[in-house]
Amino acid sequence: MIRHTIASALAIVLASAPAAATPADGQGLAWDIVAGLTTEVGQRLAGTDREAAAREWAAARLKALGLANVRIEPFTMRAFIRGEESGRLTAPVPQRLAITALGNSVPTPAGGLEVEMVYFANFDALKAAPAGSLKGKVAFIDHAMRANQDGSGYGPYGNVRRQAPSMAASKGAIGAVLRSAGTDPHRNPHTGATNFAAGVAPIPSGAVSNLDADLVARTAALGKPMRISLTLTGHPQDNAPSGNVIADLPGRDPSLPLIVIACHLDSWDLGTGAIDDAAGCGIITAAALAAQREGKLLRTVRLLWAGSEELGGFGGAAYAKAHAAEAHALAMESDTGADRVWRVKFRLGASSAGLANRISAALDPMGIVRSKDEPEGGTDVGAIIAAQKLAVIDLDQDATRYFDLHHTPDDMLDKVDPVQLQQNVDAWAKVLRIVANEPGEISGGS
Amino acid sequence: MIRHTIASALAIVLASAPAAATPADGQGLAWDIVAGLTTEVGQRLAGTDREAAAREWAAARLKALGLANVRIEPFTMRAFIRGEESGRLTAPVPQRLAITALGNSVPTPAGGLEVEMVYFANFDALKAAPAGSLKGKVAFIDHAMRANQDGSGYGPYGNVRRQAPSMAASKGAIGAVLRSAGTDPHRNPHTGATNFAAGVAPIPSGAVSNLDADLVARTAALGKPMRISLTLTGHPQDNAPSGNVIADLPGRDPSLPLIVIACHLDSWDLGTGAIDDAAGCGIITAAALAAQREGKLLRTVRLLWAGSEELGGFGGAAYAKAHAAEAHALAMESDTGADRVWRVKFRLGASSAGLANRISAALDPMGIVRSKDEPEGGTDVGAIIAAQKLAVIDLDQDATRYFDLHHTPDDMLDKVDPVQLQQNVDAWAKVLRIVANEPGEISGGS
Repeated sequence: MIRHTIASALAIVLASAPAAATPADGQGLAWDIVAGLTTEVGQRLAGTDREAAAREWAAARLKALGLANVRIEPFTMRAFIRGEESGRLTAPVPQRLAITALGNSVPTPAGGLEVEMVYFANFDALKAAPAGSLKGKVAFIDHAMRANQDGSGYGPYGNVRRQAPSMAASKGAIGAVLRSAGTDPHRNPHTGATNFAAGVAPIPSGAVSNLDADLVARTAALGKPMRISLTLTGHPQDNAPSGNVIADLPGRDPSLPLIVIACHLDSWDLGTGAIDDAAGCGIITAAALAAQREGKLLRTVRLLWAGSEELGGFGGAAYAKAHAAEAHALAMESDTGADRVWRVKFRLGASSAGLANRISAALDPMGIVRSKDEPEGGTDVGAIIAAQKLAVIDLDQDATRYFDLHHTPDDMLDKVDPVQLQQNVDAWAKVLRIVANEPGEISGGS
Repeated sequence: MIRHTIASALAIVLASAPAAATPADGQGLAWDIVAGLTTEVGQRLAGTDREAAAREWAAARLKALGLANVRIEPFTMRAFIRGEESGRLTAPVPQRLAITALGNSVPTPAGGLEVEMVYFANFDALKAAPAGSLKGKVAFIDHAMRANQDGSGYGPYGNVRRQAPSMAASKGAIGAVLRSAGTDPHRNPHTGATNFAAGVAPIPSGAVSNLDADLVARTAALGKPMRISLTLTGHPQDNAPSGNVIADLPGRDPSLPLIVIACHLDSWDLGTGAIDDAAGCGIITAAALAAQREGKLLRTVRLLWAGSEELGGFGGAAYAKAHAAEAHALAMESDTGADRVWRVKFRLGASSAGLANRISAALDPMGIVRSKDEPEGGTDVGAIIAAQKLAVIDLDQDATRYFDLHHTPDDMLDKVDPVQLQQNVDAWAKVLRIVANEPGEISGGS
């Protein structure tokens, strides 16, 4: 829907004056940031020159918006460099598989491999496989993730991606192929990081789309041995350059502990990281500027556009280390796409009960419900929250379609609904106006 | 939705008895044919060994179902053999493009090409480009296809695919890249055949997904020259072996002109050809058998599972040539996926007005409306219709989502809704029961 609106508008513009045309705008600052990052930079894989280009783009944009103390804080990390990736069943029926490598995968041998593939209907079935039983084979691990509004499927089924390749390797497997940690019915596999336990030698690891996983399941059900031809040449790269981009909206009283709000600037490389997480950067930036439109805020609000979130939160860890000496009051993060905020969660000490009530009341007219659940904070603020026992507010976004898109080639600008994006900005601005003008202590509780 | 049902059912079956399990069935014969062709054969690109495997599968299946005179009628055709395919913008912003070659494309030079790419907002803009103005360049041709229930966008916008590369070549272009002739917002380009006019040397030609086309349009709007790196190694192959699979349901009076009902057995290779056109083969076969469940039909019904439809209707042409001496009365074809029949169109002479009325009345309780539009018949029956001036009945399927899927990697089993598939079978069976029991002349009109 959105795609067509934009494309049509462009088609008209371009037909009349191709050279002078600029992208359709008027959707607000958050949209402009998402459109700019995805069009003028594109994918921003952590540790690569495209992430570096994104840092330069971000710093220039934040300066142009009038933010203070805009700086890039570099660090190094273990990157993942994508290579060739292809897979196909060779028996009992030849079938191409749409596959992508997982972060921290290691390469297949030169020329690829062609071996038996053993089907496991779920992670528990893999765990039950005898020691050594997968020697020289590829393990296929299926699962049953569903789309939920709160995104709760990504915990258990995301763990298949995070942990199953290591488990398969520990039983002798020379490769792991998984059903993507995703919920869409399209031929686009979901990438994402996997992790190998200490003492387990990493193996080539990839994910296939849900449709390919369905095909593998049906093929397994034919009852004949399966074989896979697999080539994944992607590999880790140590000491890759990354960095955080930081900018401040200075408060009237700089002595008060600051509010840190975060998004992440890096993206996976299959799409252009529109919902993950250019949207978050657009939301927090537009909201911070909107929050002070009626007057300078009491407390400093710091924007953290974190680097290298996807491969393990390197940016958040670097931030916490570099800023350990600064007093923080509260942390918030936007990293679940661009769909509407549907609920708010608080971690606030007893002394801040009134603050939480005022925020809930402000969000109520937007239909945002208050949850008693514990907030999660987010990967980019997790380390500073833990280090300083910060207060946390989560503005949970509707995640129903997030895991259709997350980490796939489909994570492109058309997936951002400008109306829902602006609803996020409005909700965040309401919250920031209240918390950044709070004169009393903001505590994170016990 | 369907995917999950199947996957869940399988997961349960496989967890208990992996070796003995068979695919979930009980959805009826049409479903079984679609599931079988896509799982046990997979893609069936015309002129390849996979199409040959499909012919063997089809003949065995039709014999097992008790059909008569099951035979394979071979012919040769010009195939298209897919090769490597990759594209990326190299300027003004590096961006990967999801691209696929079009049928009848020729290869890029060894090592690919890297040249300026000129953006045309539509086919008319390309037509207006001066002679020679594209020399040494790649042309990008955009368009604005939308999803319609009657599939009418595929005429004009499908023509961009069919004709624009030839037009670009005639103006000196060394490559053509198009927005896919499709309506989905996914990173899956649509393949399909293109044609080069007599006297125009073919050029490498590919289609990008709608999302990539949006990105190209936004990039063009930045107002800086675009460059593309393009590798397409797919190529035509002459004298490739193909063939039709034919089976009869003999009527009580073999002297009466027969009813031919068609689908096509070949598919594009990116998916497994579930909706295009395993579904059609499932529908016509299940319907023919259902039609005679209450007694043998008066006229012979012939099933034509045509080969090599996708590259230009070679199977339909071969059928008309081989069966020119047989008297046919009426032709029907199913080749718009698996979604519900929503209207019926007739080409029947004045003497058959009562027949049309009886068919309409039979379909009315299913909510199928009668259209006054001219039926199209279909590629597989077009030649025999023209040769014998046959009567034609179209059971038009809802095409709203057909061009989201058609010719893409997403054309997989999960896209077939078994309830709508069975609605097709029911509608076809009703029509066949009436037309194949018609004792009077069935004429195609003037």
